Amino acid sequence: MTYHLLIEARDRMGLIHSISGVLYEFGLNIEQNNEFVDPGHGRFFMRTEFSGDIDESILAAAISSRLPDVLIRISPKSEKKVVVMVTKEPHCLGDLLIRARYRELGMDILAVVSNHHGLRDLVEGFGVPYHHVPHEGRNREEHEHDILEIIKEYDPEYVVLAKYMRILSSSFVGQFPHRIINIHHSFLPAFIGAAPYKQAYERGVKIIGATAHFVNDELDDGPIITQGVIPINHTFSALDMAQAGRDVEKQVLAKALKLVFDDRVFIFGKKTIIFE
Amino acid sequence: MTYHLLIEARDRMGLIHSISGVLYEFGLNIEQNNEFVDPGHGRFFMRTEFSGDIDESILAAAISSRLPDVLIRISPKSEKKVVVMVTKEPHCLGDLLIRARYRELGMDILAVVSNHHGLRDLVEGFGVPYHHVPHEGRNREEHEHDILEIIKEYDPEYVVLAKYMRILSSSFVGQFPHRIINIHHSFLPAFIGAAPYKQAYERGVKIIGATAHFVNDELDDGPIITQGVIPINHTFSALDMAQAGRDVEKQVLAKALKLVFDDRVFIFGKKTIIFE
Amino acid sequence: MTYHLLIEARDRMGLIHSISGVLYEFGLNIEQNNEFVDPGHGRFFMRTEFSGDIDESILAAAISSRLPDVLIRISPKSEKKVVVMVTKEPHCLGDLLIRARYRELGMDILAVVSNHHGLRDLVEGFGVPYHHVPHEGRNREEHEHDILEIIKEYDPEYVVLAKYMRILSSSFVGQFPHRIINIHHSFLPAFIGAAPYKQAYERGVKIIGATAHFVNDELDDGPIITQGVIPINHTFSALDMAQAGRDVEKQVLAKALKLVFDDRVFIFGKKTIIFE
Amino acid sequence: MTYHLLIEARDRMGLIHSISGVLYEFGLNIEQNNEFVDPGHGRFFMRTEFSGDIDESILAAAISSRLPDVLIRISPKSEKKVVVMVTKEPHCLGDLLIRARYRELGMDILAVVSNHHGLRDLVEGFGVPYHHVPHEGRNREEHEHDILEIIKEYDPEYVVLAKYMRILSSSFVGQFPHRIINIHHSFLPAFIGAAPYKQAYERGVKIIGATAHFVNDELDDGPIITQGVIPINHTFSALDMAQAGRDVEKQVLAKALKLVFDDRVFIFGKKTIIFE
Repeated sequence: MTYHLLIEARDRMGLIHSISGVLYEFGLNIEQNNEFVDPGHGRFFMRTEFSGDIDESILAAAISSRLPDVLIRISPKSEKKVVVMVTKEPHCLGDLLIRARYRELGMDILAVVSNHHGLRDLVEGFGVPYHHVPHEGRNREEHEHDILEIIKEYDPEYVVLAKYMRILSSSFVGQFPHRIINIHHSFLPAFIGAAPYKQAYERGVKIIGATAHFVNDELDDGPIITQGVIPINHTFSALDMAQAGRDVEKQVLAKALKLVFDDRVFIFGKKTIIFE
Repeated sequence: MTYHLLIEARDRMGLIHSISGVLYEFGLNIEQNNEFVDPGHGRFFMRTEFSGDIDESILAAAISSRLPDVLIRISPKSEKKVVVMVTKEPHCLGDLLIRARYRELGMDILAVVSNHHGLRDLVEGFGVPYHHVPHEGRNREEHEHDILEIIKEYDPEYVVLAKYMRILSSSFVGQFPHRIINIHHSFLPAFIGAAPYKQAYERGVKIIGATAHFVNDELDDGPIITQGVIPINHTFSALDMAQAGRDVEKQVLAKALKLVFDDRVFIFGKKTIIFE
Repeated sequence: MTYHLLIEARDRMGLIHSISGVLYEFGLNIEQNNEFVDPGHGRFFMRTEFSGDIDESILAAAISSRLPDVLIRISPKSEKKVVVMVTKEPHCLGDLLIRARYRELGMDILAVVSNHHGLRDLVEGFGVPYHHVPHEGRNREEHEHDILEIIKEYDPEYVVLAKYMRILSSSFVGQFPHRIINIHHSFLPAFIGAAPYKQAYERGVKIIGATAHFVNDELDDGPIITQGVIPINHTFSALDMAQAGRDVEKQVLAKALKLVFDDRVFIFGKKTIIFE
Repeated sequence: MTYHLLIEARDRMGLIHSISGVLYEFGLNIEQNNEFVDPGHGRFFMRTEFSGDIDESILAAAISSRLPDVLIRISPKSEKKVVVMVTKEPHCLGDLLIRARYRELGMDILAVVSNHHGLRDLVEGFGVPYHHVPHEGRNREEHEHDILEIIKEYDPEYVVLAKYMRILSSSFVGQFPHRIINIHHSFLPAFIGAAPYKQAYERGVKIIGATAHFVNDELDDGPIITQGVIPINHTFSALDMAQAGRDVEKQVLAKALKLVFDDRVFIFGKKTIIFE
């Protein structure tokens, strides 16, 4: 069996030697190994992919006994359970459904939740449950409460916002710390907020982009996972930009999810460390 | 001889037919032709590259007589005369000097003006005059006055800011309307203002960029000509980003200048129309 | 109504003037216009998007009467009818099904034909007919005959090979001249033929790509429409390359189809002229 | 002081633990660490950047005593001494001269050798010796002998072919195993051999590229270090492609040299392992 071991610690001499020593003693075979030290913060990050027979908690305990102050995550390489939230646009959702069906992203889509009903046929065509949670006549708190009820039934490891166009409250976000991933339709931090393609059109930029990021309390300000761009020119209307942007959005989101679901992403402050 | 004809007009039926008719009557051979209509503004743009024997003012008059309200630019295909302004960084300047020497960008560098003296050897090694105009002990008005004196002697068609790190006054900019080109070390409009790489580092972006634009009154807000990007990751310090950014900066500036100096760029409001 | 007018002719003076004159006389409004002259062959290409009320054959006749030797194609802007052929891989097909459903590529998928049955559920989930034409126990001639029978029932304007992994005979290809589009999983002309990712792995390249092209008689040698690339490194196995390549393949194929179905592509010899 | 430690070995359990143990015992601080295992060949590669006070041969001996069969390279982080060979084209050479002058690539250019005299002024303007070794009236053996005489005087660590357009003999290449780096003006393995832009033009490709590689016995077949690409279209003549290609060539060469001179590149068979 293959496992992912993620370690974060205050940097000091001998860390790699100590950790690799524990793996060696357990007879585990290191298949991939990456380290990074953030020199400004004296912070050490390590990701190891190893194979062997092991009880995760025993291994974690062995590392902890030698290095008491390090943060340890160990998990078997496996598919992550995901609920996807959408509004009206099908391009990201459609791409995720296809990829999930053919097991491309290390992701199992348990359900799709939407504040509209337009994407039901698409989703159900893939045999995935679709929950329409209308926001009409409900305030944000009530609406989010309804959504939470549904999500909690599925108990997902991650919530993916695949063009969900309503802003989530801090209280909602706080339920899933570092576990909500959003695709934003601009090259953040350019064009924060609403209608980024309109903003881009008016500014006359020559490249547009998309950004996949973890969602935190501040709008469009969570740790960035991946960004992508596409060249445009003067012939593009704001609508053409949105259309061109869709392809980038779905690529960027898929790439980000693949990295996160393969346990390659650390969050440190408002940044990510990613071992590709 | 090859000429560039640029026409801007209120859009209406028959424009192409009328203009191409004049060229036909004069026996001129169209080698390239591009049109664009901005549908929002009902504005027509056309660039024609033609060859033949012609007096430019006679041709312009012939077009004007048939289409009295159009804006016309005709110029023989030729090198543009340029003064380059720099501060301390050699990468863009060095690239321009090499390209100018081997006639790659349609540009003749008449002189380099700097508020520092560090790049003198590099510039003079290419046989180009170098003017050091110190800003110490001078206010902005006086300093710009000194620079203007020098530039005016050379009477350039364009002023290129190849990492000139001081902000120019409106009055200075007003002397060269649509004729000053700047390279900005970020993917505008992200990270406007000072220290964009520090800003990018702190935001944790995964792509950085550079923007070549015409300079107008507002800081970093002139019409964009070209933009370029380069992927980065968590291992990049702000310094590493600046270093990586340099390669994009020099590519983007060179690409923009090539387009402008080949008469391929229209400015319309705060945007550009570019016939590549 | 919007129309696409495509003209190919021996280059000479006055062509644009003559053609735009006919459009002007008919009161048609030019919305986009592009010309290109291949200087080596003295060949003129023009694509015009115009709007108005017109009988296509009358307009074609009017142009022909003035310019007897030019090739003319006029068609209303509309969706193209397509049959897709596949073998086992779902990534390109899935992307096309999603895009067709949401009318993104100017394409109506009439049916899918495959020499395997594995993709039936995916296709039928989109309400598209799926025809399994097994090749076992049939020689190529017989197998292609069976496929042709089915395709002809649908009378498509284009046949798209979305990872159809068998080589088509000249006789089959000859039934659809310039109307079969293939996605090849390499950056042609590198790695022509079978197993390009294995070839790329063995050569140790640092970038892999994909190529969308028209199919002609010679294997992998038809006119190229679009190409795309993705960087790889030493950690990629041949299998990883294939996986990474899939994303490029589907993007490149979608981009090519959009251009072809919007009547933006001329074929000239073994090259394409594309007015983007 | 900072050192680069490169290790290559038959893969087995405990390698990282052993090697990091030696560094720990010597009180050396690991700043960067990368490992890679080629699963097909069971081969382990590791690059460590560490700082501390150490005698390189003592450290190497300590590692060897514990792991007798591993290949070890240790060198202080420092500029590499380089001789550049060119023919007539200035773009790569000019870029290297500028970068070397401002210490960008970890490279000290000791001299430039050319079979033409056209680039003498450029080179000498940078204070670098220029040696013109004409090939007229000399057979290849004699010509290479003359070049070798000059290169050997400078005793460079690397020879960089910055558009040197003559094929070098095996005997010449054998003098500098794994120490000659070439920039090839195509996206290898497409368009091997002469006139790649002409070949690309005739094939009608939509992307062109460049490849930096180590030179070995077989033409254009050495281990690839870096590749880069640029999109083109039907309007590009073979000459335009060559011009567009120049920018890619100089970027790709600079990137490759930076990696090699920072001791980030292993050669294994005909491939490279690169720890970026």
